[in-house]
Amino acid sequence: MKLYIGNKNYSSWSMRPWVLLKAFGIPFEEVKLRFDFTPGSAFYQALAALTPVGKVPLMVEDDGFVIWDTLAITETLAEQHPEHAIWPRGARQRARARSLCAEMHAGFGTLRSLCPMNIDADLQAVGTRLLATEPKLKADLARVDALWSEALAASDGPFLFGAFSAADAYFAPVVMRVTRYGLPLTAAAQAYVQAIEAHPAVQAFVADALAERDFIAEDEPYRTQA
Amino acid sequence: MKLYIGNKNYSSWSMRPWVLLKAFGIPFEEVKLRFDFTPGSAFYQALAALTPVGKVPLMVEDDGFVIWDTLAITETLAEQHPEHAIWPRGARQRARARSLCAEMHAGFGTLRSLCPMNIDADLQAVGTRLLATEPKLKADLARVDALWSEALAASDGPFLFGAFSAADAYFAPVVMRVTRYGLPLTAAAQAYVQAIEAHPAVQAFVADALAERDFIAEDEPYRTQA
Ligand SMILES: N[C@@H](CCC(=O)N[C@@H](CS)C(=O)NCC(=O)O)C(=O)O
Ligand SMILES: N[C@@H](CCC(=O)N[C@@H](CS)C(=O)NCC(=O)O)C(=O)O
Repeated sequence: MKLYIGNKNYSSWSMRPWVLLKAFGIPFEEVKLRFDFTPGSAFYQALAALTPVGKVPLMVEDDGFVIWDTLAITETLAEQHPEHAIWPRGARQRARARSLCAEMHAGFGTLRSLCPMNIDADLQAVGTRLLATEPKLKADLARVDALWSEALAASDGPFLFGAFSAADAYFAPVVMRVTRYGLPLTAAAQAYVQAIEAHPAVQAFVADALAERDFIAEDEPYRTQA
Repeated sequence: MKLYIGNKNYSSWSMRPWVLLKAFGIPFEEVKLRFDFTPGSAFYQALAALTPVGKVPLMVEDDGFVIWDTLAITETLAEQHPEHAIWPRGARQRARARSLCAEMHAGFGTLRSLCPMNIDADLQAVGTRLLATEPKLKADLARVDALWSEALAASDGPFLFGAFSAADAYFAPVVMRVTRYGLPLTAAAQAYVQAIEAHPAVQAFVADALAERDFIAEDEPYRTQA
């Protein structure tokens, strides 16, 4: 099975299934398509040869069958690997985990557009400025904090639903934003940020992102120095 | 189990699980919260008493446990009702159905914002005008057409994956937009529109929407006459 992804430094959607696969030790071959959102770019041409979706990540099975979108990939992996608790084992925890992931999937538009993931960058000053001027960013952050805090209060582990699950893979890129933009959280949510950053699958992705050093102007709206 | 929904005439997200539940004959109690997106409105107060999410639809179990977001509701219903093929029975059809639903869930922003669902209205003139002036709307429509046509070509029934499934419930509100705004499609996609409109669960929802006659100015950006 192949996982097509974008630049690790920037591609928050790619990070989710990559971290999930690594966390559960599911073998896959990574294929990186360098980001270039110019119409007709090599990025779009490579994608078009696989499927008309035009977005990463893609999960491509050995015979070429393509599954697109992080949520469909996650559900498919959970079905293919019942030996792993990709979703939490309890039915209600699982329903709650899916609500959290779905809310992330279609929501948090301000956080996503104002604070694009950039693992390599220190954007604390930008974060402080944005939080002071953008009330919708504050609201998104408060919602993230509330989602995490509520799940953690009911959790018997450092992660949202005890052991590391798809929900944590789903929020790993949000953790990247929180730390890079220095966004303040309550104590419980802050402890969760540390648990995610300490997870080996997240550390492996971050190490690759830092080693990448392939900076793309379009994805660097804020950085003024390397 | 209760399903909290918004106005049937306007609430495209509410339509999805409502039609799904009806199509499979799963019993539920409908609770309608009249749309009012003013901060502090009765709509938001009623939601806040259930969960901080602030959006419909919500599935609320008998002891008050809340599942939010259409995708989480769909997956939970599929788990709770293995006797129903809520997702197609074939693993690959299921993976494909999930890719389609997930793409809809986070995408088609232009179609959704420019052509909000309004089951009661005839907006053909608006649709013609928008298609002529909004290239992104044309692109969204072309993508819908391609998604449907590709699935239908491999389908052995009138619906996307043979028998009616969650994928069809997911696209039912898109069908409402296509017909109300008079958006042109290829022949295969047009036949699918007719199959969806003829489905009893869709017809039941449409009948309720038409009987509602509770018009809300905020949701009527285009209509000039009743
Ligand atoms: N809903 C999709 C989002 C995927 C997505 O937006 N991917 C971005 C990169 S992180 C992309 O490929 N964008 C290219 C484009 O939008 O043209 C998912 O969950 O997989
Ligand atoms: N991703 C959500 C979307 C739900 C949604 O946006 N619902 C609308 C009504 S159709 C709503 O309640 N909006 C209230 C608001 O955004 O404040 C889902 O799939 O359930």
